[in-house]
Amino acid sequence: MNQDYIILMEKLKKINAYNMALVLFQWDNATAAPKRAIEHTAEAMGILSDAYYRALTGDDMSALLQRLNSASDLTPEQHAIVLKTAEMYEEIRLIPADEYAAYQTLLAKADGIWQNAKLNNDYASFAPVLKEIIAYAKKFAGYKAQARNYSGPLYDMALDGYEKGFTTEVLDEFFEKLKASIVPLVRLAVKNHALVDNCFNFRRYDIELQKKISRKLAAHIGFDFDRGVIAESAHPFTTSLHNKDVRITTAYLENNLESAMFSTIHEGGHALYEMHIDDAFTCTPAGTAMSMGIHESQSRLYENNIGRSRAFWEPLYPMLKETFPEQLRDVTLEHFVKGINQCVPGSIRTEADELTYCLHIMVRYEIEKMIFSQEIDVLDLPGVWNDKYEEYLGLRPQNDSEGILQDIHWAGGSFGYFPSYAIGTAIAAQIYDHLKKVMPLDQYLAEGTLTPVSDYLKEHLHRFGASKPTMQLISEMTGEPFNPDYYIQYLQEKYTKLYSA
Amino acid sequence: MNQDYIILMEKLKKINAYNMALVLFQWDNATAAPKRAIEHTAEAMGILSDAYYRALTGDDMSALLQRLNSASDLTPEQHAIVLKTAEMYEEIRLIPADEYAAYQTLLAKADGIWQNAKLNNDYASFAPVLKEIIAYAKKFAGYKAQARNYSGPLYDMALDGYEKGFTTEVLDEFFEKLKASIVPLVRLAVKNHALVDNCFNFRRYDIELQKKISRKLAAHIGFDFDRGVIAESAHPFTTSLHNKDVRITTAYLENNLESAMFSTIHEGGHALYEMHIDDAFTCTPAGTAMSMGIHESQSRLYENNIGRSRAFWEPLYPMLKETFPEQLRDVTLEHFVKGINQCVPGSIRTEADELTYCLHIMVRYEIEKMIFSQEIDVLDLPGVWNDKYEEYLGLRPQNDSEGILQDIHWAGGSFGYFPSYAIGTAIAAQIYDHLKKVMPLDQYLAEGTLTPVSDYLKEHLHRFGASKPTMQLISEMTGEPFNPDYYIQYLQEKYTKLYSA
Repeated sequence: MNQDYIILMEKLKKINAYNMALVLFQWDNATAAPKRAIEHTAEAMGILSDAYYRALTGDDMSALLQRLNSASDLTPEQHAIVLKTAEMYEEIRLIPADEYAAYQTLLAKADGIWQNAKLNNDYASFAPVLKEIIAYAKKFAGYKAQARNYSGPLYDMALDGYEKGFTTEVLDEFFEKLKASIVPLVRLAVKNHALVDNCFNFRRYDIELQKKISRKLAAHIGFDFDRGVIAESAHPFTTSLHNKDVRITTAYLENNLESAMFSTIHEGGHALYEMHIDDAFTCTPAGTAMSMGIHESQSRLYENNIGRSRAFWEPLYPMLKETFPEQLRDVTLEHFVKGINQCVPGSIRTEADELTYCLHIMVRYEIEKMIFSQEIDVLDLPGVWNDKYEEYLGLRPQNDSEGILQDIHWAGGSFGYFPSYAIGTAIAAQIYDHLKKVMPLDQYLAEGTLTPVSDYLKEHLHRFGASKPTMQLISEMTGEPFNPDYYIQYLQEKYTKLYSA
Repeated sequence: MNQDYIILMEKLKKINAYNMALVLFQWDNATAAPKRAIEHTAEAMGILSDAYYRALTGDDMSALLQRLNSASDLTPEQHAIVLKTAEMYEEIRLIPADEYAAYQTLLAKADGIWQNAKLNNDYASFAPVLKEIIAYAKKFAGYKAQARNYSGPLYDMALDGYEKGFTTEVLDEFFEKLKASIVPLVRLAVKNHALVDNCFNFRRYDIELQKKISRKLAAHIGFDFDRGVIAESAHPFTTSLHNKDVRITTAYLENNLESAMFSTIHEGGHALYEMHIDDAFTCTPAGTAMSMGIHESQSRLYENNIGRSRAFWEPLYPMLKETFPEQLRDVTLEHFVKGINQCVPGSIRTEADELTYCLHIMVRYEIEKMIFSQEIDVLDLPGVWNDKYEEYLGLRPQNDSEGILQDIHWAGGSFGYFPSYAIGTAIAAQIYDHLKKVMPLDQYLAEGTLTPVSDYLKEHLHRFGASKPTMQLISEMTGEPFNPDYYIQYLQEKYTKLYSA
């Protein structure tokens, strides 16, 4: 084996160990740690981040990667790992070590502050830390723009961290297109709202029983409990230590049946991706999805395209009805499937229906553009947020907990992340269309046989990890480039049928 | 501030961060991680251990500690931290870096292997890894003996890691003394067994309700849920990341009421100690108890001396009876308090009554002495274990899961640890006697007011962390040196009264 590659792998093992420790602390803070733990834990996380940073940016790394980049004796897998490591290296070395460590410590603290602010509807307590995070995010984007000699919008550099090629120019056009097709459909749904009922969703559903249902749904789509766990947190998320330790969380609400079920299917879709990544890539920088958009395509595919279809629920609905016989006594399968596809504009993104979802993303996209293009006062943001909700969704959030404080992303410094949700949703529709062409998908779903679906996705997508660019993965799998028209067509067909009197 | 001390603190922050990551991985492996996680996680833990080792044994550490040891401008707290760091440094530098890392990786793997072996009653699958761990333990004890030029029994060097001064010579005498007083009492209890009934304990107790009881009991003794959590694991334990993140586990059995209750009180006693350690010491090598024995004294004090007293249950028993009205309908407080003090020789240490407990420890002590003094075949150990149980407790374990596989300690490399349980139990009785002299203890317990107890222990013991030797702590608190006669007297009074016809 190439001697330089052996040296690189030794370094990557170290880098991976520090990263795994950080991922575990983040998971633990969200799911298990006592409230006051962060008072001392944040500092330890800062030190581990610093160790990670130093291991990745060590003196000899640059020359090593350069030599490996031009080496001719690497396998394609090894080459992909070198490329992905180089990308990470280039990204992180833009940031000075002390700023990187201080930023990580800040984020560790911000998580608890955000959680409390959300709990107590107290945006003012979160604002100072948000201000600091924004200052870092803009500074880091500036470093990248400078290194690339990029003179376009600063926000493009934040977006680049999540989805290459999707600049504000591209996204403005993409969102305009979505808006033009979604808004008329939402109007139709609001006008004919009486056609779809989901009152059953808000009856009282015992949380212990909901947990059992969540586990069954996860297992049904292929979640492997020997390689993964489900826990609870304020905001559902997926995290992965490696392909044999993939973790999802769900938040259970007693008066909402759909919430936990569909967030479990959603995070389960993410989890399948991580569990299926090849052993050749796991524990290396190529051991995750290439981009947030392609990751999100899998959660959305399972949650919506598959998970809200009639065929999917045919074998499952009897089990659900048996679990909640009183609550679902008067609800037929037809009724249920219509209900879980109901479109009602609301203030919570994670509770949004499939049709209005991208409008929530547009609000965040536009606020992030604003944050990166001008000096804003963080105390003005809740007002901007609420105004945009009124403009796009026709409602004002009742308070900041249900408004600007609802998402964890900004507390985690993830500016530029939100658009990936919309991109991923569009990719999901393209893949869903493709699946229907290559296999009798509805028949499999109706039989309760989801293994052919996850096997196909593993073979043609998941196993590659970050070894191929997103757009290449889509082309090779579906036979054509990324095309958001599938998504628009899917929404038009589905919602015209559902809401036509 | 002393410049060298500032440098030491920077180093200790790093050492602490690596240690915290390792503690978190260990906790997570026992409570949350999926089964297959360890396939990749073990390696990352090995790397973090290596980073810990290197941070502690860095080139300049020796000179730094020497300078600080003779510095005249340190506060007593700073001096204690320097001393404790020097002790850790001396201990760990005896072991070569590569052996230390390999050993940590081995232990990370051993945990899962032991858990499966216990689950499947398959000692043979654990034997090879136990053999490896024993080889390391003996090798490391040998390094210490060599460094100290010690020619006594090798096992003394293992014991020294948990309780200074308690050599095999001291322990042989200690255990002889215990045996002489315990054995006649056990005979009395067996003879008059009809006087005490605890059939109620084995009725069906809903596990969710047991969890609520455990939380109430923990809160009752002073466990602060803002600084701590309770989770589940195969074998109950306490771990601490720092004084604001202290974690205990419990294992719930549907057909055993006492098991989870008393293990929660036991681990809760450990947790109080860790939560009460002064901020000046937490996150440093002085930020834990000085020894395992003094730590165990607090868990035993709460579990047995306090937790099995009539006064303790007076205010709590109505709540317990309300939670389990059917199961406890025919059980009076008198009956219950007798029942929880029943003495019945059994095969499980953690389920053992207060009287036979130290006999379980003797079995382990004698086997460890044997392991360190001769070449044994690990496959012979189950037989030795069972023979000793027959000799001391009059019974043979039904299988290895209930025999040699019951404890996690050897899988974790903790040879020399077990005797601390007996030492701690004796210290607990001495402190219990002292508490009764300095406060109206039974009155407080009967009122359900346990704050004066935990405040006193915090003030006179817990807050010092590892800044004072165990024997000094006992003398300063109780006004006299360690004296096991309090324990013997306590047992004699209690069990003579309980089992005299």
